[in-house]
Amino acid sequence: MPGNTFGSLFSVTNFGESHGPAIGCVIDGCPPGMELSEADIQPDLDRRKPGTSRHVTQRQEPDTVEILSGVYEGKTTGTPIALLIRNQDQRSKDYGNIIETFRPGHADYTYWQKYGIRDPRGGGRSSARLTAPIVGAAAIAKKWLLQQYGTTFKGCMSQLGELPITFESWEHVPNNPFFAANISQIAELEAYMDALRKDGDSCGARIDVVASNVPVGLGEPLYDKLDAEIGYAMMGINAVKGVEIGAGFASVAQKGSQHGDEITRHGFLTNNAGGILGGISSGQDITVSIAIKPTSSIRTPRQSIDKQGNPATVETFGRHDPCVGIRATPIAEAMLALVLMDHALRNRAQCGDVRVAQLVDSK
Amino acid sequence: MPGNTFGSLFSVTNFGESHGPAIGCVIDGCPPGMELSEADIQPDLDRRKPGTSRHVTQRQEPDTVEILSGVYEGKTTGTPIALLIRNQDQRSKDYGNIIETFRPGHADYTYWQKYGIRDPRGGGRSSARLTAPIVGAAAIAKKWLLQQYGTTFKGCMSQLGELPITFESWEHVPNNPFFAANISQIAELEAYMDALRKDGDSCGARIDVVASNVPVGLGEPLYDKLDAEIGYAMMGINAVKGVEIGAGFASVAQKGSQHGDEITRHGFLTNNAGGILGGISSGQDITVSIAIKPTSSIRTPRQSIDKQGNPATVETFGRHDPCVGIRATPIAEAMLALVLMDHALRNRAQCGDVRVAQLVDSK
Amino acid sequence: MPGNTFGSLFSVTNFGESHGPAIGCVIDGCPPGMELSEADIQPDLDRRKPGTSRHVTQRQEPDTVEILSGVYEGKTTGTPIALLIRNQDQRSKDYGNIIETFRPGHADYTYWQKYGIRDPRGGGRSSARLTAPIVGAAAIAKKWLLQQYGTTFKGCMSQLGELPITFESWEHVPNNPFFAANISQIAELEAYMDALRKDGDSCGARIDVVASNVPVGLGEPLYDKLDAEIGYAMMGINAVKGVEIGAGFASVAQKGSQHGDEITRHGFLTNNAGGILGGISSGQDITVSIAIKPTSSIRTPRQSIDKQGNPATVETFGRHDPCVGIRATPIAEAMLALVLMDHALRNRAQCGDVRVAQLVDSK
Amino acid sequence: MPGNTFGSLFSVTNFGESHGPAIGCVIDGCPPGMELSEADIQPDLDRRKPGTSRHVTQRQEPDTVEILSGVYEGKTTGTPIALLIRNQDQRSKDYGNIIETFRPGHADYTYWQKYGIRDPRGGGRSSARLTAPIVGAAAIAKKWLLQQYGTTFKGCMSQLGELPITFESWEHVPNNPFFAANISQIAELEAYMDALRKDGDSCGARIDVVASNVPVGLGEPLYDKLDAEIGYAMMGINAVKGVEIGAGFASVAQKGSQHGDEITRHGFLTNNAGGILGGISSGQDITVSIAIKPTSSIRTPRQSIDKQGNPATVETFGRHDPCVGIRATPIAEAMLALVLMDHALRNRAQCGDVRVAQLVDSK
Repeated sequence: MPGNTFGSLFSVTNFGESHGPAIGCVIDGCPPGMELSEADIQPDLDRRKPGTSRHVTQRQEPDTVEILSGVYEGKTTGTPIALLIRNQDQRSKDYGNIIETFRPGHADYTYWQKYGIRDPRGGGRSSARLTAPIVGAAAIAKKWLLQQYGTTFKGCMSQLGELPITFESWEHVPNNPFFAANISQIAELEAYMDALRKDGDSCGARIDVVASNVPVGLGEPLYDKLDAEIGYAMMGINAVKGVEIGAGFASVAQKGSQHGDEITRHGFLTNNAGGILGGISSGQDITVSIAIKPTSSIRTPRQSIDKQGNPATVETFGRHDPCVGIRATPIAEAMLALVLMDHALRNRAQCGDVRVAQLVDSK
Repeated sequence: MPGNTFGSLFSVTNFGESHGPAIGCVIDGCPPGMELSEADIQPDLDRRKPGTSRHVTQRQEPDTVEILSGVYEGKTTGTPIALLIRNQDQRSKDYGNIIETFRPGHADYTYWQKYGIRDPRGGGRSSARLTAPIVGAAAIAKKWLLQQYGTTFKGCMSQLGELPITFESWEHVPNNPFFAANISQIAELEAYMDALRKDGDSCGARIDVVASNVPVGLGEPLYDKLDAEIGYAMMGINAVKGVEIGAGFASVAQKGSQHGDEITRHGFLTNNAGGILGGISSGQDITVSIAIKPTSSIRTPRQSIDKQGNPATVETFGRHDPCVGIRATPIAEAMLALVLMDHALRNRAQCGDVRVAQLVDSK
Repeated sequence: MPGNTFGSLFSVTNFGESHGPAIGCVIDGCPPGMELSEADIQPDLDRRKPGTSRHVTQRQEPDTVEILSGVYEGKTTGTPIALLIRNQDQRSKDYGNIIETFRPGHADYTYWQKYGIRDPRGGGRSSARLTAPIVGAAAIAKKWLLQQYGTTFKGCMSQLGELPITFESWEHVPNNPFFAANISQIAELEAYMDALRKDGDSCGARIDVVASNVPVGLGEPLYDKLDAEIGYAMMGINAVKGVEIGAGFASVAQKGSQHGDEITRHGFLTNNAGGILGGISSGQDITVSIAIKPTSSIRTPRQSIDKQGNPATVETFGRHDPCVGIRATPIAEAMLALVLMDHALRNRAQCGDVRVAQLVDSK
Repeated sequence: MPGNTFGSLFSVTNFGESHGPAIGCVIDGCPPGMELSEADIQPDLDRRKPGTSRHVTQRQEPDTVEILSGVYEGKTTGTPIALLIRNQDQRSKDYGNIIETFRPGHADYTYWQKYGIRDPRGGGRSSARLTAPIVGAAAIAKKWLLQQYGTTFKGCMSQLGELPITFESWEHVPNNPFFAANISQIAELEAYMDALRKDGDSCGARIDVVASNVPVGLGEPLYDKLDAEIGYAMMGINAVKGVEIGAGFASVAQKGSQHGDEITRHGFLTNNAGGILGGISSGQDITVSIAIKPTSSIRTPRQSIDKQGNPATVETFGRHDPCVGIRATPIAEAMLALVLMDHALRNRAQCGDVRVAQLVDSK
């Protein structure tokens, strides 16, 4: 497949550009007979959409989703589900000044070198706007996983630029523009972002996501390990530069006697593994963290070249997220959901009902 | 595909178990007409093989490779290349004591839960021994990439347990058992490992790999970004818990004005991107780091359960790597090579010769 | 992939139902830089669309295509091209009488058994209406193949029910409603169809398609032989029950001394192979024939059962093609074009420019 | 995938050449826990092997299979099963006279044009010898399908050259060298073959295969219809030029009122559909016929060219099957089994247990 399809059995083929007429996806492989309407999908799109606070891009996109196929009389039919989101608030002229040059740290340069064609309108195909259909597709996966296994997903921002965000409670996440699991640091985060915008600069973020009630046995050795697929899914989100599962990079300095999660009848005693052993889910929570780099489209002047290779100074105006990480939490949850959905079907194909009795009450 | 095939156009299908009669792989998609013999493959296998120092498992495996197909009169024919490595030094009785219990932190538990069948002989399919055919396949990819583009690969260990290893020079890497780019810390590393073995414990490691002279334009948006595929490849190596590209997790605390690599006629001024922008190679070095957890098979007694769910204490004897990270450097290089090879062919398929002139002399 | 995607490198993911809001597809892998607009696609859709003569269904669908993505300033960008066709003339009430029963010879029965959900509106997903996006996607493939290699496609009906149609000239094909390469038999064919409609019955057809100026070397041993892929593509067209390449079933009674096409400097002397040897194109014309069964939706009463398994008599009213074969010629050409396009890219990936000099002037 | 892997969930990756050291395959996706040993596989290989009568090639190959992986203590583990068959009776010098020229009707020409490399030893990769691992892999699929659903496979030759073979009884098939379901015509068939060999010529054959007790619901719309996959599988067998399902080409001249199989509580009344409706299995027998062309390697002198394009006369000596169709029956059964196995797993993935009650007792 040429690269725009995610998943082998619950597959999501994505299309569109930031400023084209529409974006969307085709979801193939959804099991038949599940109740589904736009109302199941829109809430997740709303969590991701732009323009909801002063800390994100001011582009106004309702991101209203239309189901074009695959649902009959309110139920999935087992045939492809096409989702369509019309773009509404394109202002391509905003990008006029960057057509001939390459923004440092941006896909401008590599798209031009690869394709010999460049769509500068809002980043074209490389825009994070293309994560909207992913979030839509994942809403369907989440519904199925919840019904089948009780699987749930949550996520939060754990660092904004230089500011670590202390975990207080998941209940805070929907109540602030940063998806922070914290209520006491919000003023600090807002001040940080306001200063950043004033400076015409941008910052990175760290996001943590967790899947709970994951069935044991998901993941395929040798290559398609569950963690390998999570690595692929997460690193494929725009601007992600690092992925950790469980103890992540901290496991380098751990001893084996400290890292290996001991097991009792009543469950695992720790979760350094992040819910995955040998590439296969253990039934524990799956825990993932990602590093998101700062946005490359900034007002600060930067040294670059133009299409002829001549030196140029680049300053980017227009509407941009000063921290793409702010809206990344629902996207990371979505990617994790797509991985688990695909592997749930793959496991059902090969292993059917051979799975032995659950040995521990780990949940 | 059920999970044991890597790559879409240069595909490697792997088979075998640690203590079965043989391990190997079938490589499909190798371009025809390249000179190839076992002599091109054996040196990389020798870098990875066990038993070469006291710091790794003492299992004696020559890992001698036999090419079964796909080569005629010394040249690749364009048809599948099968590699076969017979296992020689199985001592399955060593594992007798762990057949009925699950090692904390090991795939024992999840294989049993997924398949209802467990091959305890050396970890069976979950053994890191299965990386040998990967290294063999990658030797072929490396040869082709070197001939076509001059692409080269190198790697080193940058941390052993709690000990950071200072980079001195690549030339030191082949001259010590740790793949350290350092000559002055070797005694320290050896003492650390000796103490660890004495304690019956294990430790993690951090490995850095670099690909140079990578053609610009490799990687497929949206999902099959080059970094996504690297995330998949690296996280799929046994025991890996984290992957970083370029600045990695450090990019969280960077400003956009600091992270975005400025461009001049003479090349990029920095490489925070790790050679990838928007999921597509930029022509800069591709830089990747991985975190490897400590081995789970240790002599230290640990709390666990048996197949009936009853409490059990597990101590693992037999031959194990006290730090699987020590032999991981050639494996990480191999995975990176397989990713680039596959994407070189994918790029050739879609983009043929449309690529525009190289704009910067970045190398 | 769950079954709605055709092709590995030029991949077409199809969605929609006969009476849903829209049908369409996402084409991934189109090379960048090719001029493309709806005007390149619409003519092929018009050749296939319903309602153009009294011999086909009277449903009025303009089948107007909209390109939603993948084209910028009139050129393909190398990213996915989404095609959208809104359904216009659904009259689902026409099908009311068949909701509870199964038409003999129709997918009604198997969809119900497989999915437990049945969309009776015009056959839902099983409708031949879903070939419209295929024809649209193939128009893009045809344009590229023509530009790259001069490859062209043509097809005609060679039998209608019991009536063989004598080949006179390709020039007649666009000038009659049957895609017959014949001008003298048209009155006979029209009379045959009129009688059939009057009887409330339907008939089959045989279609021949030819690709000319096919580059030598397309097709992948072992399984993905070019003829295997053509078998897959053609047998996947609604109502096809047989596929022949070259001499087809006639080769059973041929001797080797008669079948094997002799070669001279000036080309092959015959084409029993249909342009494919060992699964790889030889540069000769690729010739394919398909058998299309008679439509199952007929007014003639037939014995069947209902969803509870009780006996029922089924008569189908509504708008149907009395011979689906009449509109099948452009569809068969389209499928052949998709196969060749995909293999042209696959060949470019693996073999690049190794191809040796063309040995014969076979064209 | 580059073309040497069959199937998406029960996938068979094939390697080897006719006169290389070994042939074999890797089977990925076999469900765990099934009893399996070489004794399950060898009988099917023995049905296909050469040298068993004077009417086939006299090459002596025991085709002894070795299982290299994926089976532990007599049961499948769910991990890849590698099958190895060492070649024994290569006599490559026999082919010396055809190295520089191209046999009319043979893959010689296209392999050379595609790869620029040619392995003339017994046809190299294009040899029908490569169907041995397919038959081996299919033996595993057959065992699983039989255990799960009671599915069985049978096949026979229904035409040898110009001689139609009347169907008498399946019981005759194992008792003659032609896989004829007939005992009274054997002398006639033997005389036909003896004359053919004396003439240094070859002939074609028609093979019929049937799968019984096929579960309803296998096959994926839109493209991966069960008949499409059968078309792919059968046309991919060496020398096949035509494929029919059910009524096949005869359906062209049928009326709808005649072709559509009527349904009663007690089953379908006829089987023109060949067990597949809308690309999905109906529970009826799946019936397939294939046309096999005459062997191209014959002693009769034929006009051709050499590698420089100069005229040449080609006569092929060495050991060849004068009718490759004679050994094709077990191969066609094997391909049908692989298709059904793959789709059984695909159906289980998507549809799990939603399948509604079986409505008719069709078996």
